[in-house]
Amino acid sequence: MADIREIQNSAWSKFRPSEAVLRGDSADVYFHRTIHILEKEGLNPISVMEVFPNGGGIICGMDEALALLDRVLPANNREVWALQDGNAVISKEVALRIKAPYLRFGLYETAICGILAASTGWATAARECAQAAGEIPCISFGARHVHPFVSGRMDYAAMVGGCKGCSSVEGARLADIEPSGTMPHALIIVMGDTVKATLAFDKHIDSGVSRVSLVDTFKDEAEESLRVAAALGNKLKAVRLDTPVERGRVTAELVKEVRARLDQAGHSHVDVFVSGGITPDRIRYFVEGGAPVAGFGIGSYISGAKPIDYTADLHEVDGKPIAKRGRIPGITENPRLQRVM
Amino acid sequence: MADIREIQNSAWSKFRPSEAVLRGDSADVYFHRTIHILEKEGLNPISVMEVFPNGGGIICGMDEALALLDRVLPANNREVWALQDGNAVISKEVALRIKAPYLRFGLYETAICGILAASTGWATAARECAQAAGEIPCISFGARHVHPFVSGRMDYAAMVGGCKGCSSVEGARLADIEPSGTMPHALIIVMGDTVKATLAFDKHIDSGVSRVSLVDTFKDEAEESLRVAAALGNKLKAVRLDTPVERGRVTAELVKEVRARLDQAGHSHVDVFVSGGITPDRIRYFVEGGAPVAGFGIGSYISGAKPIDYTADLHEVDGKPIAKRGRIPGITENPRLQRVM
Amino acid sequence: MADIREIQNSAWSKFRPSEAVLRGDSADVYFHRTIHILEKEGLNPISVMEVFPNGGGIICGMDEALALLDRVLPANNREVWALQDGNAVISKEVALRIKAPYLRFGLYETAICGILAASTGWATAARECAQAAGEIPCISFGARHVHPFVSGRMDYAAMVGGCKGCSSVEGARLADIEPSGTMPHALIIVMGDTVKATLAFDKHIDSGVSRVSLVDTFKDEAEESLRVAAALGNKLKAVRLDTPVERGRVTAELVKEVRARLDQAGHSHVDVFVSGGITPDRIRYFVEGGAPVAGFGIGSYISGAKPIDYTADLHEVDGKPIAKRGRIPGITENPRLQRVM
Amino acid sequence: MADIREIQNSAWSKFRPSEAVLRGDSADVYFHRTIHILEKEGLNPISVMEVFPNGGGIICGMDEALALLDRVLPANNREVWALQDGNAVISKEVALRIKAPYLRFGLYETAICGILAASTGWATAARECAQAAGEIPCISFGARHVHPFVSGRMDYAAMVGGCKGCSSVEGARLADIEPSGTMPHALIIVMGDTVKATLAFDKHIDSGVSRVSLVDTFKDEAEESLRVAAALGNKLKAVRLDTPVERGRVTAELVKEVRARLDQAGHSHVDVFVSGGITPDRIRYFVEGGAPVAGFGIGSYISGAKPIDYTADLHEVDGKPIAKRGRIPGITENPRLQRVM
Amino acid sequence: MADIREIQNSAWSKFRPSEAVLRGDSADVYFHRTIHILEKEGLNPISVMEVFPNGGGIICGMDEALALLDRVLPANNREVWALQDGNAVISKEVALRIKAPYLRFGLYETAICGILAASTGWATAARECAQAAGEIPCISFGARHVHPFVSGRMDYAAMVGGCKGCSSVEGARLADIEPSGTMPHALIIVMGDTVKATLAFDKHIDSGVSRVSLVDTFKDEAEESLRVAAALGNKLKAVRLDTPVERGRVTAELVKEVRARLDQAGHSHVDVFVSGGITPDRIRYFVEGGAPVAGFGIGSYISGAKPIDYTADLHEVDGKPIAKRGRIPGITENPRLQRVM
Amino acid sequence: MADIREIQNSAWSKFRPSEAVLRGDSADVYFHRTIHILEKEGLNPISVMEVFPNGGGIICGMDEALALLDRVLPANNREVWALQDGNAVISKEVALRIKAPYLRFGLYETAICGILAASTGWATAARECAQAAGEIPCISFGARHVHPFVSGRMDYAAMVGGCKGCSSVEGARLADIEPSGTMPHALIIVMGDTVKATLAFDKHIDSGVSRVSLVDTFKDEAEESLRVAAALGNKLKAVRLDTPVERGRVTAELVKEVRARLDQAGHSHVDVFVSGGITPDRIRYFVEGGAPVAGFGIGSYISGAKPIDYTADLHEVDGKPIAKRGRIPGITENPRLQRVM
Repeated sequence: MADIREIQNSAWSKFRPSEAVLRGDSADVYFHRTIHILEKEGLNPISVMEVFPNGGGIICGMDEALALLDRVLPANNREVWALQDGNAVISKEVALRIKAPYLRFGLYETAICGILAASTGWATAARECAQAAGEIPCISFGARHVHPFVSGRMDYAAMVGGCKGCSSVEGARLADIEPSGTMPHALIIVMGDTVKATLAFDKHIDSGVSRVSLVDTFKDEAEESLRVAAALGNKLKAVRLDTPVERGRVTAELVKEVRARLDQAGHSHVDVFVSGGITPDRIRYFVEGGAPVAGFGIGSYISGAKPIDYTADLHEVDGKPIAKRGRIPGITENPRLQRVM
Repeated sequence: MADIREIQNSAWSKFRPSEAVLRGDSADVYFHRTIHILEKEGLNPISVMEVFPNGGGIICGMDEALALLDRVLPANNREVWALQDGNAVISKEVALRIKAPYLRFGLYETAICGILAASTGWATAARECAQAAGEIPCISFGARHVHPFVSGRMDYAAMVGGCKGCSSVEGARLADIEPSGTMPHALIIVMGDTVKATLAFDKHIDSGVSRVSLVDTFKDEAEESLRVAAALGNKLKAVRLDTPVERGRVTAELVKEVRARLDQAGHSHVDVFVSGGITPDRIRYFVEGGAPVAGFGIGSYISGAKPIDYTADLHEVDGKPIAKRGRIPGITENPRLQRVM
Repeated sequence: MADIREIQNSAWSKFRPSEAVLRGDSADVYFHRTIHILEKEGLNPISVMEVFPNGGGIICGMDEALALLDRVLPANNREVWALQDGNAVISKEVALRIKAPYLRFGLYETAICGILAASTGWATAARECAQAAGEIPCISFGARHVHPFVSGRMDYAAMVGGCKGCSSVEGARLADIEPSGTMPHALIIVMGDTVKATLAFDKHIDSGVSRVSLVDTFKDEAEESLRVAAALGNKLKAVRLDTPVERGRVTAELVKEVRARLDQAGHSHVDVFVSGGITPDRIRYFVEGGAPVAGFGIGSYISGAKPIDYTADLHEVDGKPIAKRGRIPGITENPRLQRVM
Repeated sequence: MADIREIQNSAWSKFRPSEAVLRGDSADVYFHRTIHILEKEGLNPISVMEVFPNGGGIICGMDEALALLDRVLPANNREVWALQDGNAVISKEVALRIKAPYLRFGLYETAICGILAASTGWATAARECAQAAGEIPCISFGARHVHPFVSGRMDYAAMVGGCKGCSSVEGARLADIEPSGTMPHALIIVMGDTVKATLAFDKHIDSGVSRVSLVDTFKDEAEESLRVAAALGNKLKAVRLDTPVERGRVTAELVKEVRARLDQAGHSHVDVFVSGGITPDRIRYFVEGGAPVAGFGIGSYISGAKPIDYTADLHEVDGKPIAKRGRIPGITENPRLQRVM
Repeated sequence: MADIREIQNSAWSKFRPSEAVLRGDSADVYFHRTIHILEKEGLNPISVMEVFPNGGGIICGMDEALALLDRVLPANNREVWALQDGNAVISKEVALRIKAPYLRFGLYETAICGILAASTGWATAARECAQAAGEIPCISFGARHVHPFVSGRMDYAAMVGGCKGCSSVEGARLADIEPSGTMPHALIIVMGDTVKATLAFDKHIDSGVSRVSLVDTFKDEAEESLRVAAALGNKLKAVRLDTPVERGRVTAELVKEVRARLDQAGHSHVDVFVSGGITPDRIRYFVEGGAPVAGFGIGSYISGAKPIDYTADLHEVDGKPIAKRGRIPGITENPRLQRVM
Repeated sequence: MADIREIQNSAWSKFRPSEAVLRGDSADVYFHRTIHILEKEGLNPISVMEVFPNGGGIICGMDEALALLDRVLPANNREVWALQDGNAVISKEVALRIKAPYLRFGLYETAICGILAASTGWATAARECAQAAGEIPCISFGARHVHPFVSGRMDYAAMVGGCKGCSSVEGARLADIEPSGTMPHALIIVMGDTVKATLAFDKHIDSGVSRVSLVDTFKDEAEESLRVAAALGNKLKAVRLDTPVERGRVTAELVKEVRARLDQAGHSHVDVFVSGGITPDRIRYFVEGGAPVAGFGIGSYISGAKPIDYTADLHEVDGKPIAKRGRIPGITENPRLQRVM
């Protein structure tokens, strides 16, 4: 098994389980009681638990779940098979199978299901966006819509699903990339003018970071785009349109007009990024409408994706097939599973 | 302000901000850049930021957000107004107003919005369930469907929204109650029989914990209910029906039948709890159908609730009204806000 | 014409018209009056009546209608053309053409239309089921949902439409097969246990009748299936799942689970039959869901099929084309019609 | 019990059970087998069977079912409770309870359910029409759309549901009224002219029968109405409009126009009857549109009504409550039931 | 009749019939042929023609139709009854009845129906807008969407239906008011700046005309509103928002924001007008959303309203009731009609 | 440019602009004001205006618009490009481009848009009918549903869209054909009988006009068809069915029946025309239903077609690209445009 461990170790190591999880703080209380009862009864059978999603999608959270199992299962008495982060999975397909003494992993059923559910939901939504966008990169901007404890996990899952960048520092660290971002409305409001804020950005920020100006704060977007392009010249990488719903959101026609006006003024090198309420349907609207978008910033479509719930079932106890009503006793064959421990 | 602090302190103290959040790991990277630019430019105006939800609901996460602000804002130069956890809020209503030097809180915009968005989503879904259920208590069972880092927050928010109990240890601690739970299918499968498992539970678990037997694992629910009732006698508090979708879920008729058979056999003291795919619509189906349910266990309807996104806007800089396009400059009046710092 | 008569005679003879029908008890009273008026006026022209359905389907009732006409039309002054039971017919297509003295058949217009309408409706519904089921046999179980005077006709029509068996004694006699059936819940309830009832069935019933046990009366279906399979061994032909709607109906997953548990216990020879609310949509749900069903029992989808109404029109009187408004005078060509009298 | 019998006898006597039904020809074959097995086992417990519909409606067929039970149950060992023909019944409400030795009635479960299902379906549809029509009488004209074996039962059920007349001879006999009817298109076509046919009708038919002329065969309805009114004068009771769908069906405007033209020509005593595709919705269209209709002829809406299926369950065997899964053991209270045997 | 004529004369005189209409250029050719045939046959009966709409609405075009009839009917041999422009009319209600020699008016059936159809359609749509807007005035701006031959009629009908103003010179003349209007985008584009154009407007246009500035041509609407308000001071009556669909149309939030920014800058006297795709639904959206709109400009909802077709029927010829099939012969009573000639 | 003028002159000359339009009576008042302001300011730049429809369709009204421009633009200082009447155009495609001194055409923006909007709407609806009808000719009968000022324009547009004839005298003159028409109900009612009216038509009307008899006035359509066919013999070209909605409109079955009855009586040369509520859907209903219709008369589907609104934008002033917000400055390329002046 040594080989397997080495391969995986680098991926798992960044998902070090927290002490609270190891203590079982996030466990349903009935698992604490179950462990207690079985210990008192002297029962600790070698058991097989299978974990499967209740809907299809893109798996994420598996490395993190395996990192937890690696920490709690006895090294010399365990067998674990799994699909990998980024794999497509269909509804009810076994994605993880654990064979080990029950008392070593029973407490973590809640945590394992939860890790997989949340991350698979985010990665699946990101995949939908990436497929709609084709060659155009999608960036995850939804950190502000989830609890900060999981914003890094969310951004990491967005990358697994197909995004090319994310805005949170921790998400970028987990995905081993540089965080992406332009500037917030707050910078412009504090400085009082978009051009002034963009020039200050250019002056103080490391030159490796792209200059992308947010152009909907105070003036008409097309007018502001021409002003920042004139001010920064060739250093301007892109403008970002984020028109609020109170002003009718970004339209395909607006992107075309800004593109045309930039080109007429000799700023063809300046890209147009779009954000604000972006969904796969909205991406298709821009793409099919021929709007020359160079990048999409995506917020709550990914961050607010419904978790894809997972279920964990015991299928074998002490070598004997068993199952609750509604399930088929014994191990469920799935040739796509790989032995990982 | 001293009085205010004391009153709030106990509530905030349990939401101690993590070092990662304080460091800004969960912040969008452009806030790091904004702070950097403004520092370099020597700008740190007293600014007013207003935070409002983009949909109506039940506020949750405010105590946690205030705990973070309490830690980072200068004690002698800050004014904070807020609505409270559990308050109803309407779409676009200002729920939090911060007035302080911008560099002291600008970095936390992402975290504050994320804390409020996730928790408000969960609390709002819980309120819908509680309203549908009327007098019948609802218990949050969804810990397994969210990432363990936030499962405690989710269960806490469910309590704020109206649930009477939750299954995770951490959620119960935050809400200052005992965690609720019956027994998992795993205990029954490991022990091989429902009656045996229920007797073991009764033998080993503190007598303060209610005896609730899960009766759909191996046999017909009505048959199993009569078996456990016969075995535990008056000690049995309730049976829980959790019939899987493969067997047609729990129906109102099944609840009535189990109730009738228990009564016919002299077990009128045994309550019937229901779980599995419970939503407000399903609750109304049971209630309006006259099914004698004594408690609902609710999973992904609450845990998978879409976040209710929050937006943060600067409305005043150095005493002057200002705003981005689409917003009205200056402070937005909301007489429901209370000064909390 | 002699040849024609001989061919048909065997089919028609089993549908001997009743005295009440011959008397005209089932006729609309205005036909009695019409016959009376024409007799008084001395009118009895050779008339051509055409009969067609108001919707497409599978013809049934034609043999029965012809048996009636054979009895009442003058042998030496009649011409009858018809499509056959089991033929597909399209809306408005002439299915029966009668040329004879009007007074000899005018009274029977109500009966002929009624025979064809009811039977065509049943046969058409049966065809829909049979097409959905493909190779899997369908059995008609709907006798209890129609008046016993017509339950045999209904079951016969179901066979014409494509069923492979039926439960009523008279339907089976008309279709010249053995009636099908397993056992009613009543037998099991009277005997108090499914295994006991199945053993009694096996003991007393002719060995030519298949042993099919109904397994949803008292216990979980999978558990009961294993019990009866163990008790009867190789003599058990099949189990029948008839889970009531109060328990969520039969699901595809339940069929798969019972199949798997039977196989795991070495009872691969035992088939699984399904009944209860079966419709073409439900059949497709099982077939497309891969559920290993070996036979469907179908009740009210066939027995409650809406009649496909027939209309009878005079198109020629004394050799002259004529018709009421809205119809085209003269004989309607239909090359599919065959001369049968 | 003598009193009860006498009261009911007159109603039941007209529904003498046929020999085929008594022999069990219409029974599901498994009841024959069940009787055989129980006889061999020497089992014939006093059993309670409850019969209820699976949908709400107007009960019909009860007298006929009771006539059958009266014939087969032992006079000195039976208890029967029932609702009555014409009563409203709600879904799942017990409409018939039989307590007697099982072997005396088990064979007739199929027939009893079928009698009730078919007749209740027809009566319920008739009630819908009668309610829509209010004071305007509805006549059942659907004999041609059902098998002649049951056309009398159908017309009888239509009367129970609220119709004021029916066209079949047998239906009228069961309901103890005169059959209704005008004249068929066939009479007019054979005679070649509507006026000629109407005059012949008047000449030869008993003067107790109303003169109602069918006016859509050859000419425009309004023109023909004036012609027959002129020809018959005060003897004409009504004209019947039956415009075929090929000519746009009868419209409310046509009724008003014919009414106005008749009135203008001094024939205010001539009523206007309407038939052809009449449903409750069509009746409401005429009534709410103010069309002066004096009677509706209703065909397949009643005759093609879907049966309202009944289910029969054993709830007590030898004095002990029992039931299959999904039902509640023991007698179901229903204070509306009356003891009838 | 003299009195009647005088009263009406002023209203009719402004609708002088054109020579082309009097010549019958707009008549269906079969009326020319009919006149020719009847003249040749020497037939010119006094006939009664009734004209009614095929849908409900607000009558308009009646004065114009009467002006035509006044010109062509013989003064000493005519009777005309009519409803008035602005009256509500229901579907099929007689709105105009003409009694005169047929040859004097038969040719004008096409023109009379057409005048009423088009004008009634426009007036009815205008009424829907006015009702939705309540106290807020609606102005008709749709002249550019109809042929210039009828643009005056359209604007006049809009006023009859409830608009308070219109933009076309001829429509205003017919309705006896001053035409309304602000300034077109063309003026601003030719002059190159909104403030410059507004100042030029103020300089050269009669001071009786309100100063209303169109503020969406080059810059953000809120920014431009503040610029023109600063430039004109108290002379500015209103700004008009006409944001194109490419920029998301006008929203309720935009109106509120412009209102708030104007108020903050001390320009509370400046009203906000809204135009662009206005319909009754959009009006309700603004009104129910609390947007402080001071006037709506309405284009194609009124100008593109479907005509409400009228039908003309002869009901009496030479004093005898007559009618085509489907109509009731003789004069149709309508007490709301008034004798006008 | 001389060549271009000659080619176009014949087409434009029939659309001589009226004095009212040249005076600007139909112009929005703000254009009068704009001209006044610019004259006072001494501004009259060479400007480029582009005109495009807001929906796709068949262009009509272009010749009329060009006739107006030809009259008002300076012959030596103008460039005009246009698509042609009858061309398909897509939404937003530039259909007309004018380059000339602004003061010479600015006043006519309202009229040009209105001419194009109304005519394009009518032509587009006619094209839909013609495409549905395929080889069967469509005739425009809607003159009575529009104001007589524009009925000729409407009929002309119907011809441009694909109709083969029209009923108004002026429409036929513009399209350079003979007007089409049969006879009105009025002729038949005045003469009292359809046959009599048809014979009078035949007697008095030029033999070059087809004899088409309207057969639904007094009697059943099939009966009347046979009567007129018998009376006129070979001179009868066709019958027209126009059954009113009160009698169920014309049905496909009625057409087939009339066709069959005419053929049975030896009148195969008599065609069947259909009118009354004809739409593309109704045409498809007849065509796909195999009804042998020889011509469709179409009324309000064409005459009541919603205008397809046009927008006019300035894109260049004094040689400099310019545009309002939401449009792209400078000339819009469209290779389909042809230089016409």
